[in-house]
Amino acid sequence: MADINTPAKITKRHEDYNQWYQDVIREADLAQPAEVVKGCMVIKPHGYGIWEKIQADLDKRFKATGHKNAYFPLLVPMSFIKKEAQHVEGFAPELAVVTHAGGKELEEPYVIRPTSETIIGHFFSQWIHSWRDLPLLINQWANVMRWEMRTRMFLRTGEFLWQEGHTAHATHQEAIEETMRMLGVYADFAEQVLAIPVIQGQKSDGERFAGAVSTFCIEAIMQDGKALQAGTSHDLGQNFGRAFDVKFQNQTGQDEYVWQTSWGVSTRLIGGLIMTHSDDQGLVLPPRVAPVHVVIVPIYKNDTEKEKVLQAAQQLAHTLLQTLYGRDELSVEIDQREGMSPGAKYYHWERKGVPVRIEIGPKDLEKSQVTIKSRIDSQKEFVQTTNIVSHVLKLLDNIQATLLTRARQMRDEKIVMVDDMATLESVLTEQQKAAYVRWDKDPAFEAKLKQMQATTRCFPLHLKDDPGPCIFSKKRAQRRVLVARAY
Amino acid sequence: MADINTPAKITKRHEDYNQWYQDVIREADLAQPAEVVKGCMVIKPHGYGIWEKIQADLDKRFKATGHKNAYFPLLVPMSFIKKEAQHVEGFAPELAVVTHAGGKELEEPYVIRPTSETIIGHFFSQWIHSWRDLPLLINQWANVMRWEMRTRMFLRTGEFLWQEGHTAHATHQEAIEETMRMLGVYADFAEQVLAIPVIQGQKSDGERFAGAVSTFCIEAIMQDGKALQAGTSHDLGQNFGRAFDVKFQNQTGQDEYVWQTSWGVSTRLIGGLIMTHSDDQGLVLPPRVAPVHVVIVPIYKNDTEKEKVLQAAQQLAHTLLQTLYGRDELSVEIDQREGMSPGAKYYHWERKGVPVRIEIGPKDLEKSQVTIKSRIDSQKEFVQTTNIVSHVLKLLDNIQATLLTRARQMRDEKIVMVDDMATLESVLTEQQKAAYVRWDKDPAFEAKLKQMQATTRCFPLHLKDDPGPCIFSKKRAQRRVLVARAY
Repeated sequence: MADINTPAKITKRHEDYNQWYQDVIREADLAQPAEVVKGCMVIKPHGYGIWEKIQADLDKRFKATGHKNAYFPLLVPMSFIKKEAQHVEGFAPELAVVTHAGGKELEEPYVIRPTSETIIGHFFSQWIHSWRDLPLLINQWANVMRWEMRTRMFLRTGEFLWQEGHTAHATHQEAIEETMRMLGVYADFAEQVLAIPVIQGQKSDGERFAGAVSTFCIEAIMQDGKALQAGTSHDLGQNFGRAFDVKFQNQTGQDEYVWQTSWGVSTRLIGGLIMTHSDDQGLVLPPRVAPVHVVIVPIYKNDTEKEKVLQAAQQLAHTLLQTLYGRDELSVEIDQREGMSPGAKYYHWERKGVPVRIEIGPKDLEKSQVTIKSRIDSQKEFVQTTNIVSHVLKLLDNIQATLLTRARQMRDEKIVMVDDMATLESVLTEQQKAAYVRWDKDPAFEAKLKQMQATTRCFPLHLKDDPGPCIFSKKRAQRRVLVARAY
Repeated sequence: MADINTPAKITKRHEDYNQWYQDVIREADLAQPAEVVKGCMVIKPHGYGIWEKIQADLDKRFKATGHKNAYFPLLVPMSFIKKEAQHVEGFAPELAVVTHAGGKELEEPYVIRPTSETIIGHFFSQWIHSWRDLPLLINQWANVMRWEMRTRMFLRTGEFLWQEGHTAHATHQEAIEETMRMLGVYADFAEQVLAIPVIQGQKSDGERFAGAVSTFCIEAIMQDGKALQAGTSHDLGQNFGRAFDVKFQNQTGQDEYVWQTSWGVSTRLIGGLIMTHSDDQGLVLPPRVAPVHVVIVPIYKNDTEKEKVLQAAQQLAHTLLQTLYGRDELSVEIDQREGMSPGAKYYHWERKGVPVRIEIGPKDLEKSQVTIKSRIDSQKEFVQTTNIVSHVLKLLDNIQATLLTRARQMRDEKIVMVDDMATLESVLTEQQKAAYVRWDKDPAFEAKLKQMQATTRCFPLHLKDDPGPCIFSKKRAQRRVLVARAY
């Protein structure tokens, strides 16, 4: 075991970005590879605490837009997966299969859900009969499993936690509106809560969800210039309605297949948080998803000082714990560990991304003040005891806003307009950036990108039509697509 | 499809209790058997809404007692299950096994967790080194799978949702205190939130958890006199510590195995809710776990009336939706469906267990009043518009309290003191009740009970020592045990 006063090294970003990412996760104690379960991870309390904040906020947004939660079986009959042709093609290589149960071999094997369109389609066909049953707006919080070869904590793991929305509508128009509504919910959540500015856009035919008519996504740009698909919203058309015979009688008495959508975000968002905000000192968290908002470190040299300082710390913690931040109270810790220097404690909480640190020592007590330090500012401030609560609340709001501003700046610097292939290659590889390029939608370009370990990410919705020659074929192209290496 | 104005029949309890249970679930739209996934169920929005209320309340209690949530893998290496001898014996027959993944046969199969003592034990051995790391207080919200032959919705299904607490301590005394603390948390939650009075007690050696030193439980008595194990809390001693080599260095520098506990409640609680409170008219819910607190049914005969009535209904809903009930706002629905009579709407919401119904018609508007009906009272009350909010809040508190009082009365009537086997048989079968009987702990009595489809449920903690002859062996027994048929 390491000496608690000598923290382990965090690799610097410019030295080895991937090692930095793993070091940040380890030192913040967010998660660890499960090892004994191939490609899976354990989400430790500090990491799970972030997921709980994400869940709570998103769940309110889903309910406010009329959705209700439900729970469908983990196991899906193998035959279900095969009913939608593109769907099985996309997911077959990644399935985990249950062949035995209760001491016997099963007649038909089950797969562990990689996503639930099929099993939910089956039940929708029982629940939906008439136009009166529509729209049906369901969400599920669940674990899913996709057997991946190359895994990376939070970003790509065999099992992960997510939510999957599944809705059915009477018209394609309504389904499209739902698809775009939930894309907007994700984008607003990413910016306002995670402080991750995202690009909303539409996937190319080659990149869309297996079984969808069209897939929309929010893409974020990480500090290393790679893109991260942070959420998707699919217009499923009538594909699953046909595969699972989900019909309704419309208002003129005719039977029609329903129009469906599905949309999801996952624990991958935590990977996005880390790679957007964290620094060489460790994890940085937007206050709105921080499991701990404030840590109080008492400073003393002898028992007399200790008694006074701890009493003041407890009093302050008590006040802060009763202070509302959003809908819940502030979360506050006092670090009373013995045998650990204040400096080591500072490192410890800095690495965990706690937004605000309050130091209280004998000199602070004399002056009726505390010393406050923001996680993202090197300066310390001295704040009078009577002003602490309002100061902390203002500081949290400042940190939240600053992180978004910084991330926007970073993103804007990392995406450039490019019009020729040579520059594109240099932008993607040497400059480690992403690019907007004109593309005529011919898949040949995507094949070429693969050689540069890059992909088309989306046709950004905010970009207006910009006709001109395709960067690859030189044929006329109507729009620009975002191109990047990606997680 | 049935006519929406002619609700389906709910079997009466005295006619066929099991059919009544299924009818209540179907008519309240809580869940349905999955059928295509053997022994599993779909939890529909109204049922899942109850589970969300249960989760939210319990989660606060777990955090208030110092526990943090985390997430461990769904899949457990087969070899792990075999490491604790009693554990594998108990769970082996119920395991679902993953043998193939990613298109290949696995070298070592995985089982889907039936419970997580083994996989969590493995990680605890990595996390715990010194007494400073203890106590370690973890909880997990998860799905688990036990392949059951005879299933019953909510009460016993192949997959179910639950929470499992897992803690590690430096001394047996501390582990025992934790075991009892969480038993107390469950008992208080059951009574105060679910309005289910429970008997706290200790399981016999034959009934305890596979791998535990001792198992404590909360047992509830249903309307048909059967017992329901509603939650368990296990003192695991050092059994899993030994199996997974979970050691810590104590304060004198010696290595010791940790002392562990685990404790859990599941979606089975919803089955307990149904069978404790519901009646021949359908579901009855304690307000603290009701997904909808108030339904407003507008009554009108023509368009002029409709406009006025709907406006008043919306205004009232708006006010109620902003009213705090506990930590959250009241949940309110207006039933505006066309082509459905008010009476059919009353039935609909009654069957869903909505605690309070408010009717608004033209005559109510004239008198500046509404008509209010409680789910558990046949009388209607006329309440002046200005008093509605306080009246509704008081009514909800009354319903919550009345349900607990009724359930206590019911439970007390259903358990009798019995001292001879002939009476016991009559009590269990003809009278459909449970009994407290003296028992010397010889398993022969439990074998005899099996013939009556009954089991020992627990040695109740609230019963004082009551020495006398064992009901079966006539040898001296120190305590009484609760005996019942059980779910």
